[in-house]
Amino acid sequence: MSGASVWQGAGQRIYIQEVGPRDGLQMESVFVPTADKIAMVNALSAAGVAKVEVTAFVSPQAIPALADAQEVLRGIVRRPGTVMTCLVPNIKGAQRAMEAGADELNLVMSASETHNLCNLRMLREQSFAGLAEVVAVAQQGSVAVNVSLSCSFGCPMEGDVPAAEVLGWAQRFIDLGVQGITLCDTTGMAHPAQVHALVSAFKARWPQTTLTLHFHDTRAMALANVLAAIAAGGDRFDASVGGMGGCPYAPGASGNACTEELVHALQLMGYDTGVDLAALTAVAASLPALIGHATPSAIVQAGPVSQRHPAPASLPDIRARAQARCLA
Amino acid sequence: MSGASVWQGAGQRIYIQEVGPRDGLQMESVFVPTADKIAMVNALSAAGVAKVEVTAFVSPQAIPALADAQEVLRGIVRRPGTVMTCLVPNIKGAQRAMEAGADELNLVMSASETHNLCNLRMLREQSFAGLAEVVAVAQQGSVAVNVSLSCSFGCPMEGDVPAAEVLGWAQRFIDLGVQGITLCDTTGMAHPAQVHALVSAFKARWPQTTLTLHFHDTRAMALANVLAAIAAGGDRFDASVGGMGGCPYAPGASGNACTEELVHALQLMGYDTGVDLAALTAVAASLPALIGHATPSAIVQAGPVSQRHPAPASLPDIRARAQARCLA
Repeated sequence: MSGASVWQGAGQRIYIQEVGPRDGLQMESVFVPTADKIAMVNALSAAGVAKVEVTAFVSPQAIPALADAQEVLRGIVRRPGTVMTCLVPNIKGAQRAMEAGADELNLVMSASETHNLCNLRMLREQSFAGLAEVVAVAQQGSVAVNVSLSCSFGCPMEGDVPAAEVLGWAQRFIDLGVQGITLCDTTGMAHPAQVHALVSAFKARWPQTTLTLHFHDTRAMALANVLAAIAAGGDRFDASVGGMGGCPYAPGASGNACTEELVHALQLMGYDTGVDLAALTAVAASLPALIGHATPSAIVQAGPVSQRHPAPASLPDIRARAQARCLA
Repeated sequence: MSGASVWQGAGQRIYIQEVGPRDGLQMESVFVPTADKIAMVNALSAAGVAKVEVTAFVSPQAIPALADAQEVLRGIVRRPGTVMTCLVPNIKGAQRAMEAGADELNLVMSASETHNLCNLRMLREQSFAGLAEVVAVAQQGSVAVNVSLSCSFGCPMEGDVPAAEVLGWAQRFIDLGVQGITLCDTTGMAHPAQVHALVSAFKARWPQTTLTLHFHDTRAMALANVLAAIAAGGDRFDASVGGMGGCPYAPGASGNACTEELVHALQLMGYDTGVDLAALTAVAASLPALIGHATPSAIVQAGPVSQRHPAPASLPDIRARAQARCLA
């Protein structure tokens, strides 16, 4: 797509991938009951998102909020057009996810050595070696693999992460035969100039690899980054319903890009997201009862642009008095 | 500017116009002491903004928060490069503002008949007739005039406001000889496709008229709208420090575009805003003590992208253990 036409969507398909049930809920201190998780995933896929990150097959001690991964994945309704992906950290998690029917495995490592050490307790080379084994297991089972590269747009501790390093890690996974790569702006450091440059470089090098962009709205740049990515050829975006999932470095700040904010803006611009905004916003509006606090969703708070506000009851009187002054 | 290059600022000058002291403070229930208002305006102009909307010369009964308009305007430091503008609703206000030394008068009417009636108790034709008299007074005094057209991107009660109507009101004021027009997205209804189209139409028709865009972040589209406007040739943006100024239709929702969020993003993209981000953010951080509540500023909450977070003290141990596993 040319940069000039990004402002008019003209029916272009954009794929919205919902990460709230995993990336959002894992940040919450409450355990959302399994039946509510299943209902949430079902409502999201019914609303028309292209993919749902359903859960994570990790140690229940590490992330108690997602201890019911198997029940959730087994319990959800499968719809044509919605890929059900699950985060897995290792072979054991991959095997459990595959047994429970995952359409795709999502693997995570960081493009930043410091962040990888802090988050995964491994050097990046160790992570890569372990994930390469997971890729082999997935391939034996004919299950698709996506690799999410954290800190692809910067590390809160290291600062800049060179694009060449990010693309180098992508290359190594693509060489293994993975189907998709997600460039993650894990702590909301990406800006549109950087996004346009990195997505352009990725698309030039791997036009056939499925590329997802995962933005955070920590510094209020998520939508602008999405548009910069679209201008550079990107068409798949992770987002979290209600904007669930905070930023660990900034308590109270926004975390994940908010799904209904992206869908709302992209639809107004004429893009085809395939998502029913009202159904999606209904899921967002149901979250406070589940997680015990409000979400940062601007669409839940202010309503969509299409929503009319009633004029005051006194408007006819105001108008009549104004008209009377005209005649006076 | 071509649409393709909006993503790389390449040193292009963007003019940031601060509206917090008027548009922000008038929404607040507290009266900020005059000396604090003067200090705020001085700090904002020292930070490098191109214009400050200092106050409004309106009835103190209507807006008690700005009852000290004359003292504030007389008390501030004037700096070359910062235009001091004041909102005035009528000839009396214009005369008071001119006596107190306003560089520019900012006049307001709505492009929506319903909104104009609700907000100003006048038909649009009545507003225009009254403002035309104010323009004449300003011209006699050789003071510049800017006209802000509310609801240029939609009315919360009427819905769409046709672009032809918006441009028609602009035409009538430009015919009177005003120096500038501001297209205001009063309740955050503008989206980037619409912004790109309307700004393109304006710039094609009046390439010499100074055009300002005034966006709200009510539905999280402010920065994307700014970039759409830049792609269409816009280069002046109103914004409010700390994002001060709520949305009357959505309690708790964001209002005005936040100055430091715009400056932060535009600077990262390579634009020249002329603004010292740290100095601006310091003003934003000082607001809660003045207005009695937190602001929605993502930059105050999360810090700029350039801010490094310290790695955990245990990082050397984590690294050593990881390396030991490599050797094992």
